[in-house]
Amino acid sequence: MAKDMTLLWGSGSPPCWRVMIALEEKNLQGYNQKLLSFEKMEHKSKEVMEMNPRGQLPAFKHGDRVLNESYAACMYLESQFKSQGNKLIPDCPAEQALMYQRMFEGLTFNEKMASVIYYNWKVPEGERHDSAVKRNREALSAEVKLWEGYLEKRSGCFLAGKNFSLADVVVYPSICYLFRFGLCEERYPKMAAYYNCLKDRPSIKATWPPTWLENPQGQDLLKDI
Amino acid sequence: MAKDMTLLWGSGSPPCWRVMIALEEKNLQGYNQKLLSFEKMEHKSKEVMEMNPRGQLPAFKHGDRVLNESYAACMYLESQFKSQGNKLIPDCPAEQALMYQRMFEGLTFNEKMASVIYYNWKVPEGERHDSAVKRNREALSAEVKLWEGYLEKRSGCFLAGKNFSLADVVVYPSICYLFRFGLCEERYPKMAAYYNCLKDRPSIKATWPPTWLENPQGQDLLKDI
Repeated sequence: MAKDMTLLWGSGSPPCWRVMIALEEKNLQGYNQKLLSFEKMEHKSKEVMEMNPRGQLPAFKHGDRVLNESYAACMYLESQFKSQGNKLIPDCPAEQALMYQRMFEGLTFNEKMASVIYYNWKVPEGERHDSAVKRNREALSAEVKLWEGYLEKRSGCFLAGKNFSLADVVVYPSICYLFRFGLCEERYPKMAAYYNCLKDRPSIKATWPPTWLENPQGQDLLKDI
Repeated sequence: MAKDMTLLWGSGSPPCWRVMIALEEKNLQGYNQKLLSFEKMEHKSKEVMEMNPRGQLPAFKHGDRVLNESYAACMYLESQFKSQGNKLIPDCPAEQALMYQRMFEGLTFNEKMASVIYYNWKVPEGERHDSAVKRNREALSAEVKLWEGYLEKRSGCFLAGKNFSLADVVVYPSICYLFRFGLCEERYPKMAAYYNCLKDRPSIKATWPPTWLENPQGQDLLKDI
Protein backbone atom coordinates (compact mmCIF):
# COMPACT_ATOMS: atom_id res chain seq x y z
CA MET A 1 0.00 0.00 0.00
CA ALA A 2 1.29 3.37 -1.02
CA LYS A 3 -0.36 5.47 1.66
CA ASP A 4 2.61 7.86 1.72
CA MET A 5 2.00 8.88 -1.90
CA THR A 6 -0.38 11.50 -3.29
CA LEU A 7 -1.37 12.04 -6.89
CA LEU A 8 -3.50 14.87 -8.22
CA TRP A 9 -4.44 14.06 -11.80
CA GLY A 10 -6.64 14.82 -14.78
CA SER A 11 -8.42 12.24 -16.94
CA GLY A 12 -6.84 11.51 -20.33
CA SER A 13 -3.72 13.60 -19.78
CA PRO A 14 -0.75 11.54 -21.04
CA PRO A 15 1.62 12.85 -18.31
CA CYS A 16 -0.84 11.87 -15.55
CA TRP A 17 -1.53 8.54 -17.14
CA ARG A 18 2.20 7.69 -17.33
CA VAL A 19 2.57 8.07 -13.57
CA MET A 20 -0.54 5.97 -12.91
CA ILE A 21 0.72 3.16 -15.16
CA ALA A 22 4.12 3.21 -13.44
CA LEU A 23 2.46 3.04 -10.01
CA GLU A 24 0.38 0.01 -11.10
CA GLU A 25 3.38 -1.73 -12.63
CA LYS A 26 5.31 -1.31 -9.38
CA ASN A 27 2.37 -2.66 -7.34
CA LEU A 28 1.92 0.71 -5.68
CA GLN A 29 -1.82 0.76 -5.24
CA GLY A 30 -3.82 2.53 -2.58
CA TYR A 31 -2.14 5.90 -2.91
CA ASN A 32 -4.07 9.06 -2.07
CA GLN A 33 -5.47 10.46 -5.26
CA LYS A 34 -7.81 13.09 -6.52
CA LEU A 35 -9.23 13.47 -10.00
CA LEU A 36 -9.38 17.12 -11.02
CA SER A 37 -11.04 18.81 -13.97
CA PHE A 38 -9.03 20.74 -16.55
CA GLU A 39 -12.30 22.24 -17.84
CA LYS A 40 -13.03 23.72 -14.43
CA MET A 41 -9.39 24.96 -14.28
CA GLU A 42 -8.81 22.92 -11.14
CA HIS A 43 -5.17 22.44 -12.19
CA LYS A 44 -4.71 26.10 -11.21
CA SER A 45 -6.29 25.60 -7.77
CA LYS A 46 -4.44 26.38 -4.54
CA GLU A 47 -4.22 22.66 -3.76
CA VAL A 48 -2.30 21.99 -6.98
CA MET A 49 -0.20 25.17 -6.89
CA GLU A 50 1.08 24.26 -3.43
CA MET A 51 2.47 21.00 -4.79
CA ASN A 52 3.24 22.13 -8.32
CA PRO A 53 3.87 25.87 -8.70
CA ARG A 54 3.63 25.44 -12.48
CA GLY A 55 -0.09 24.74 -12.05
CA GLN A 56 0.09 21.53 -14.04
CA LEU A 57 -1.04 17.96 -13.55
CA PRO A 58 0.16 15.53 -12.44
CA ALA A 59 1.15 16.82 -9.05
CA PHE A 60 2.76 13.91 -7.27
CA LYS A 61 4.58 13.37 -4.03
CA HIS A 62 6.07 10.51 -2.09
CA GLY A 63 6.33 11.63 1.52
CA ASP A 64 7.74 15.11 1.14
CA ARG A 65 9.53 14.35 -2.13
CA VAL A 66 7.81 16.16 -4.95
CA LEU A 67 7.93 14.67 -8.46
CA ASN A 68 5.60 16.60 -10.71
CA GLU A 69 7.36 15.88 -13.99
CA SER A 70 5.93 12.60 -15.23
CA TYR A 71 9.24 11.25 -16.56
CA ALA A 72 10.89 12.17 -13.26
CA ALA A 73 8.20 10.34 -11.29
CA CYS A 74 8.50 7.23 -13.47
CA MET A 75 12.31 7.11 -13.23
CA TYR A 76 12.16 7.69 -9.48
CA LEU A 77 9.54 4.99 -8.86
CA GLU A 78 11.52 2.43 -10.85
CA SER A 79 14.69 3.33 -9.00
CA GLN A 80 13.16 3.29 -5.50
CA PHE A 81 11.05 0.16 -6.01
CA LYS A 82 13.40 -1.78 -8.26
CA SER A 83 12.58 -5.22 -6.95
CA GLN A 84 8.85 -4.61 -6.47
CA GLY A 85 6.29 -5.35 -9.19
CA ASN A 86 7.51 -5.40 -12.78
CA LYS A 87 11.05 -4.46 -13.67
CA LEU A 88 10.79 -1.48 -16.04
CA ILE A 89 14.41 -0.96 -17.12
CA PRO A 90 15.94 -3.92 -18.98
CA ASP A 91 19.38 -5.22 -17.96
CA CYS A 92 20.48 -5.95 -21.52
CA PRO A 93 22.56 -2.91 -22.58
CA ALA A 94 21.18 -2.90 -26.14
CA GLU A 95 17.56 -3.00 -24.93
CA GLN A 96 18.35 -0.38 -22.34
CA ALA A 97 19.84 1.95 -24.96
CA LEU A 98 16.78 1.50 -27.17
CA MET A 99 14.48 2.07 -24.21
CA TYR A 100 16.10 5.37 -23.30
CA GLN A 101 16.21 6.50 -26.92
CA ARG A 102 12.49 5.76 -27.48
CA MET A 103 11.49 7.27 -24.12
CA PHE A 104 13.01 10.61 -25.02
CA GLU A 105 11.87 10.55 -28.62
CA GLY A 106 8.46 10.13 -27.01
CA LEU A 107 8.68 13.73 -25.81
CA THR A 108 9.05 14.97 -29.39
CA PHE A 109 6.16 12.74 -30.44
CA ASN A 110 3.98 14.15 -27.68
CA GLU A 111 4.96 17.73 -28.50
CA LYS A 112 4.10 17.30 -32.18
CA MET A 113 0.77 15.78 -31.23
CA ALA A 114 0.01 18.59 -28.81
CA SER A 115 0.83 21.25 -31.41
CA VAL A 116 -2.00 19.89 -33.57
CA ILE A 117 -4.57 18.93 -30.94
CA TYR A 118 -4.16 22.01 -28.74
CA TYR A 119 -3.50 24.56 -31.48
CA ASN A 120 -6.58 26.70 -30.82
CA TRP A 121 -6.07 26.42 -27.10
CA LYS A 122 -2.39 27.38 -27.23
CA VAL A 123 -2.42 30.08 -29.91
CA PRO A 124 -4.53 33.22 -29.37
CA GLU A 125 -7.10 33.86 -32.08
CA GLY A 126 -5.32 36.78 -33.72
CA GLU A 127 -2.11 34.78 -34.09
CA ARG A 128 -3.52 31.71 -35.82
CA HIS A 129 -2.46 30.84 -39.37
CA ASP A 130 -3.66 28.11 -41.71
CA SER A 131 -0.05 27.71 -42.85
CA ALA A 132 0.99 26.88 -39.28
CA VAL A 133 -1.85 24.39 -38.87
CA LYS A 134 -0.81 22.72 -42.12
CA ARG A 135 2.86 22.60 -41.12
CA ASN A 136 2.03 21.18 -37.67
CA ARG A 137 -0.15 18.47 -39.23
CA GLU A 138 2.59 17.55 -41.70
CA ALA A 139 5.14 17.37 -38.89
CA LEU A 140 2.82 15.11 -36.88
CA SER A 141 2.19 12.92 -39.91
CA ALA A 142 5.95 12.47 -40.47
CA GLU A 143 6.38 11.69 -36.78
CA VAL A 144 3.62 9.07 -36.76
CA LYS A 145 5.15 7.43 -39.84
CA LEU A 146 8.51 7.29 -38.06
CA TRP A 147 6.94 5.43 -35.12
CA GLU A 148 5.01 3.14 -37.46
CA GLY A 149 8.43 2.23 -38.88
CA TYR A 150 9.90 1.65 -35.41
CA LEU A 151 7.01 -0.67 -34.59
CA GLU A 152 7.44 -2.52 -37.87
CA LYS A 153 11.11 -3.20 -37.18
CA ARG A 154 10.85 -4.08 -33.48
CA SER A 155 11.84 -7.54 -32.35
CA GLY A 156 9.38 -8.04 -29.46
CA CYS A 157 5.87 -6.95 -28.55
CA PHE A 158 7.03 -3.77 -26.91
CA LEU A 159 8.80 -0.56 -27.86
CA ALA A 160 12.22 -1.62 -26.62
CA GLY A 161 12.26 -5.38 -27.09
CA LYS A 162 10.64 -8.37 -25.52
CA ASN A 163 9.71 -6.77 -22.21
CA PHE A 164 7.35 -3.99 -21.23
CA SER A 165 9.56 -1.09 -20.13
CA LEU A 166 9.53 2.58 -19.21
CA ALA A 167 9.44 3.35 -22.94
CA ASP A 168 5.96 1.78 -23.08
CA VAL A 169 4.92 3.48 -19.85
CA VAL A 170 5.64 6.93 -21.24
CA VAL A 171 4.78 6.54 -24.94
CA TYR A 172 1.66 4.35 -24.82
CA PRO A 173 -0.64 7.10 -23.47
CA SER A 174 0.30 9.34 -26.40
CA ILE A 175 -0.51 6.58 -28.84
CA CYS A 176 -3.92 6.09 -27.21
CA TYR A 177 -4.43 9.83 -27.50
CA LEU A 178 -3.80 9.70 -31.26
CA PHE A 179 -6.49 7.07 -31.71
CA ARG A 180 -8.85 8.90 -29.36
CA PHE A 181 -8.48 11.86 -31.71
CA GLY A 182 -9.26 9.79 -34.77
CA LEU A 183 -6.01 8.36 -36.13
CA CYS A 184 -6.90 5.77 -38.77
CA GLU A 185 -6.11 2.20 -37.66
CA GLU A 186 -5.99 0.96 -41.27
CA ARG A 187 -3.42 3.56 -42.25
CA TYR A 188 -1.12 2.73 -39.32
CA PRO A 189 -1.55 -1.02 -38.80
CA LYS A 190 1.56 -1.55 -36.65
CA MET A 191 0.62 1.29 -34.36
CA ALA A 192 -2.95 -0.01 -34.18
CA ALA A 193 -1.69 -3.51 -33.34
CA TYR A 194 0.51 -2.14 -30.56
CA TYR A 195 -2.37 0.01 -29.28
CA ASN A 196 -4.81 -2.89 -29.20
CA CYS A 197 -2.31 -5.40 -27.83
CA LEU A 198 -1.58 -3.34 -24.70
CA LYS A 199 -5.18 -2.29 -24.01
CA ASP A 200 -5.83 -5.29 -21.78
CA ARG A 201 -2.62 -5.14 -19.80
CA PRO A 202 -3.73 -4.85 -16.15
CA SER A 203 -1.83 -1.58 -15.47
CA ILE A 204 -3.38 0.02 -18.55
CA LYS A 205 -6.87 -1.29 -17.95
CA ALA A 206 -6.84 -0.17 -14.32
CA THR A 207 -5.89 3.37 -15.33
CA TRP A 208 -7.88 3.88 -18.56
CA PRO A 209 -9.16 7.48 -18.52
CA PRO A 210 -12.56 7.53 -16.81
CA THR A 211 -13.84 10.29 -19.12
CA TRP A 212 -13.10 8.00 -22.09
CA LEU A 213 -15.05 5.19 -20.47
CA GLU A 214 -17.99 7.49 -19.82
CA ASN A 215 -17.86 8.82 -23.35
CA PRO A 216 -16.32 6.21 -25.69
CA GLN A 217 -16.84 8.45 -28.72
CA GLY A 218 -13.60 10.29 -29.57
CA GLN A 219 -12.98 13.05 -32.09
CA ASP A 220 -11.94 12.88 -35.72
CA LEU A 221 -9.36 15.67 -35.80
CA LEU A 222 -6.58 13.29 -36.86
CA LYS A 223 -8.50 11.08 -39.29
CA ASP A 224 -6.56 12.38 -42.32
CA ILE A 225 -3.13 12.38 -40.69
CA MET B 1 39.44 5.16 -23.93
CA ALA B 2 36.08 5.24 -25.60
CA LYS B 3 37.12 4.18 -29.08
CA ASP B 4 33.81 2.39 -29.60
CA MET B 5 31.85 5.65 -29.27
CA THR B 6 31.09 8.26 -31.92
CA LEU B 7 29.69 11.72 -31.40
CA LEU B 8 28.66 14.14 -34.13
CA TRP B 9 28.07 17.52 -32.54
CA GLY B 10 27.59 21.25 -33.01
CA SER B 11 29.28 23.98 -30.96
CA GLY B 12 27.12 25.67 -28.32
CA SER B 13 24.13 23.37 -28.71
CA PRO B 14 22.91 22.50 -25.20
CA PRO B 15 21.91 18.93 -26.16
CA CYS B 16 25.35 18.22 -27.64
CA TRP B 17 27.08 19.82 -24.71
CA ARG B 18 25.16 17.68 -22.21
CA VAL B 19 26.47 14.48 -23.80
CA MET B 20 30.03 15.82 -23.88
CA ILE B 21 29.91 16.76 -20.17
CA ALA B 22 28.53 13.31 -19.29
CA LEU B 23 31.30 11.62 -21.28
CA GLU B 24 33.96 13.67 -19.45
CA GLU B 25 32.41 12.99 -16.05
CA LYS B 26 32.45 9.26 -16.75
CA ASN B 27 36.12 9.41 -17.88
CA LEU B 28 35.12 8.46 -21.38
CA GLN B 29 37.66 10.42 -23.37
CA GLY B 30 39.11 9.57 -26.76
CA TYR B 31 35.81 8.90 -28.49
CA ASN B 32 35.48 9.50 -32.22
CA GLN B 33 34.00 12.90 -32.74
CA LYS B 34 33.27 15.39 -35.44
CA LEU B 35 32.32 19.02 -35.03
CA LEU B 36 29.68 20.01 -37.58
CA SER B 37 28.30 23.40 -38.53
CA PHE B 38 24.61 24.25 -38.10
CA GLU B 39 25.15 27.32 -40.34
CA LYS B 40 26.34 25.11 -43.17
CA MET B 41 23.35 22.79 -42.51
CA GLU B 42 25.72 19.90 -41.84
CA HIS B 43 23.20 18.48 -39.34
CA LYS B 44 21.13 17.54 -42.39
CA SER B 45 24.07 15.77 -44.09
CA LYS B 46 23.95 12.12 -45.10
CA GLU B 47 26.45 11.27 -42.36
CA VAL B 48 24.12 12.61 -39.66
CA MET B 49 20.88 11.34 -41.22
CA GLU B 50 22.28 7.80 -41.25
CA MET B 51 22.76 7.93 -37.49
CA ASN B 52 19.90 10.27 -36.63
CA PRO B 53 17.03 10.29 -39.13
CA ARG B 54 15.65 13.41 -37.43
CA GLY B 55 18.65 15.33 -38.82
CA GLN B 56 19.57 16.72 -35.41
CA LEU B 57 22.70 16.92 -33.33
CA PRO B 58 23.95 15.26 -31.26
CA ALA B 59 24.13 12.01 -33.14
CA PHE B 60 25.75 9.53 -30.78
CA LYS B 61 26.47 5.86 -30.78
CA HIS B 62 28.17 3.32 -28.59
CA GLY B 63 29.04 0.35 -30.76
CA ASP B 64 25.83 -0.12 -32.69
CA ARG B 65 23.62 1.35 -29.96
CA VAL B 66 22.27 4.67 -31.10
CA LEU B 67 21.44 7.32 -28.48
CA ASN B 68 20.67 10.58 -30.22
CA GLU B 69 18.44 12.07 -27.55
CA SER B 70 20.78 13.85 -25.14
CA TYR B 71 18.88 12.83 -22.00
CA ALA B 72 18.84 9.23 -23.22
CA ALA B 73 22.59 9.29 -23.84
CA CYS B 74 23.28 10.75 -20.38
CA MET B 75 21.05 8.22 -18.59
CA TYR B 76 22.56 5.37 -20.58
CA LEU B 77 26.18 6.42 -19.92
CA GLU B 78 25.56 6.71 -16.19
CA SER B 79 23.86 3.33 -16.14
CA GLN B 80 26.50 1.52 -18.19
CA PHE B 81 29.52 3.12 -16.51
CA LYS B 82 28.13 3.41 -13.00
CA SER B 83 31.39 2.82 -11.18
CA GLN B 84 33.61 4.73 -13.61
CA GLY B 85 34.41 8.42 -13.15
CA ASN B 86 31.97 10.49 -11.13
CA LYS B 87 28.73 9.05 -9.86
CA LEU B 88 25.95 11.16 -11.41
CA ILE B 89 22.84 9.80 -9.68
CA PRO B 90 22.80 10.27 -5.90
CA ASP B 91 21.91 7.31 -3.64
CA CYS B 92 19.97 9.43 -1.16
CA PRO B 93 16.29 9.08 -2.17
CA ALA B 94 15.48 12.75 -1.43
CA GLU B 95 18.40 14.00 -3.54
CA GLN B 96 17.52 11.53 -6.25
CA ALA B 97 13.92 12.74 -6.35
CA LEU B 98 15.07 16.35 -6.58
CA MET B 99 17.58 15.45 -9.29
CA TYR B 100 14.96 13.81 -11.48
CA GLN B 101 12.50 16.64 -10.89
CA ARG B 102 15.04 19.33 -11.85
CA MET B 103 16.32 17.32 -14.84
CA PHE B 104 12.89 17.19 -16.40
CA GLU B 105 11.95 20.73 -15.48
CA GLY B 106 15.13 21.54 -17.40
CA LEU B 107 13.33 20.56 -20.60
CA THR B 108 10.66 23.19 -20.00
CA PHE B 109 13.35 25.72 -19.19
CA ASN B 110 15.17 24.93 -22.42
CA GLU B 111 11.97 25.06 -24.46
CA LYS B 112 11.03 28.48 -23.09
CA MET B 113 14.53 29.73 -23.82
CA ALA B 114 14.43 28.36 -27.35
CA SER B 115 11.06 29.98 -28.03
CA VAL B 116 12.67 33.39 -27.45
CA ILE B 117 16.13 32.86 -28.93
CA TYR B 118 15.01 30.95 -32.03
CA TYR B 119 11.74 32.78 -32.66
CA ASN B 120 12.68 34.19 -36.06
CA TRP B 121 14.29 30.95 -37.07
CA LYS B 122 11.31 28.81 -36.04
CA VAL B 123 8.42 31.02 -37.12
CA PRO B 124 8.07 31.96 -40.83
CA GLU B 125 8.02 35.70 -41.48
CA GLY B 126 4.32 35.98 -42.30
CA GLU B 127 3.36 34.24 -39.05
CA ARG B 128 5.30 36.41 -36.61
CA HIS B 129 3.49 38.53 -34.03
CA ASP B 130 4.83 41.04 -31.53
CA SER B 131 2.26 39.73 -29.07
CA ALA B 132 3.80 36.24 -29.30
CA VAL B 133 7.31 37.60 -28.84
CA LYS B 134 6.16 39.49 -25.76
CA ARG B 135 4.37 36.45 -24.34
CA ASN B 136 7.40 34.20 -24.95
CA ARG B 137 9.70 36.69 -23.24
CA GLU B 138 7.38 36.95 -20.24
CA ALA B 139 7.19 33.16 -19.99
CA LEU B 140 10.99 32.93 -20.10
CA SER B 141 11.31 35.65 -17.48
CA ALA B 142 8.94 33.77 -15.14
CA GLU B 143 10.88 30.57 -15.76
CA VAL B 144 14.25 32.18 -15.00
CA LYS B 145 12.84 33.64 -11.77
CA LEU B 146 11.63 30.16 -10.79
CA TRP B 147 15.15 28.76 -11.22
CA GLU B 148 16.68 31.73 -9.40
CA GLY B 149 14.39 30.73 -6.51
CA TYR B 150 15.46 27.09 -6.72
CA LEU B 151 19.11 28.14 -6.57
CA GLU B 152 18.42 30.43 -3.63
CA LYS B 153 16.83 27.62 -1.62
CA ARG B 154 19.26 24.84 -2.49
CA SER B 155 21.29 23.25 0.27
CA GLY B 156 24.51 22.46 -1.62
CA CYS B 157 26.51 23.93 -4.51
CA PHE B 158 24.60 22.00 -7.12
CA LEU B 159 21.07 21.73 -8.45
CA ALA B 160 20.14 18.62 -6.48
CA GLY B 161 22.19 18.90 -3.31
CA LYS B 162 25.80 18.57 -2.33
CA ASN B 163 26.97 16.57 -5.32
CA PHE B 164 27.22 17.30 -9.02
CA SER B 165 24.56 15.16 -10.71
CA LEU B 166 22.76 14.53 -13.97
CA ALA B 167 20.59 17.57 -13.16
CA ASP B 168 23.68 19.77 -13.50
CA VAL B 169 24.83 17.89 -16.62
CA VAL B 170 21.60 18.63 -18.47
CA VAL B 171 20.63 22.07 -17.11
CA TYR B 172 24.00 23.83 -16.90
CA PRO B 173 24.43 24.25 -20.69
CA SER B 174 21.06 26.04 -20.87
CA ILE B 175 22.12 28.41 -18.10
CA CYS B 176 25.34 29.17 -19.96
CA TYR B 177 23.25 29.83 -23.05
CA LEU B 178 21.15 32.40 -21.17
CA PHE B 179 24.26 34.34 -20.18
CA ARG B 180 25.74 33.98 -23.67
CA PHE B 181 22.57 35.68 -24.90
CA GLY B 182 22.90 38.53 -22.46
CA LEU B 183 21.08 37.57 -19.25
CA CYS B 184 21.99 40.14 -16.59
CA GLU B 185 24.21 38.68 -13.83
CA GLU B 186 23.19 41.43 -11.39
CA ARG B 187 19.50 40.70 -11.82
CA TYR B 188 19.93 36.95 -11.26
CA PRO B 189 22.74 36.71 -8.68
CA LYS B 190 22.10 33.08 -7.65
CA MET B 191 22.05 31.94 -11.22
CA ALA B 192 25.20 33.94 -11.96
CA ALA B 193 26.94 32.42 -8.93
CA TYR B 194 26.01 28.90 -10.06
CA TYR B 195 27.12 29.72 -13.62
CA ASN B 196 30.49 31.08 -12.51
CA CYS B 197 31.07 28.39 -9.90
CA LEU B 198 30.84 25.53 -12.40
CA LYS B 199 32.79 27.22 -15.20
CA ASP B 200 36.11 25.79 -14.01
CA ARG B 201 34.91 22.25 -13.39
CA PRO B 202 37.15 20.05 -15.57
CA SER B 203 34.27 18.44 -17.52
CA ILE B 204 32.82 21.86 -18.31
CA LYS B 205 36.11 23.49 -19.17
CA ALA B 206 37.12 20.64 -21.46
CA THR B 207 33.86 20.94 -23.41
CA TRP B 208 33.29 24.72 -23.48
CA PRO B 209 31.90 25.56 -26.94
CA PRO B 210 34.83 26.29 -29.26
CA THR B 211 32.87 28.97 -31.13
CA TRP B 212 32.39 30.81 -27.82
CA LEU B 213 36.14 30.65 -27.14
CA GLU B 214 36.89 32.01 -30.62
CA ASN B 215 34.33 34.75 -30.22
CA PRO B 216 33.86 35.59 -26.53
CA GLN B 217 31.37 38.36 -27.33
CA GLY B 218 27.80 37.09 -26.95
CA GLN B 219 24.53 38.79 -27.83
CA ASP B 220 22.26 41.00 -25.78
CA LEU B 221 18.87 39.56 -26.73
CA LEU B 222 18.07 38.62 -23.11
CA LYS B 223 19.50 41.66 -21.32
CA ASP B 224 16.06 42.92 -20.25
CA ILE B 225 14.64 39.53 -19.27
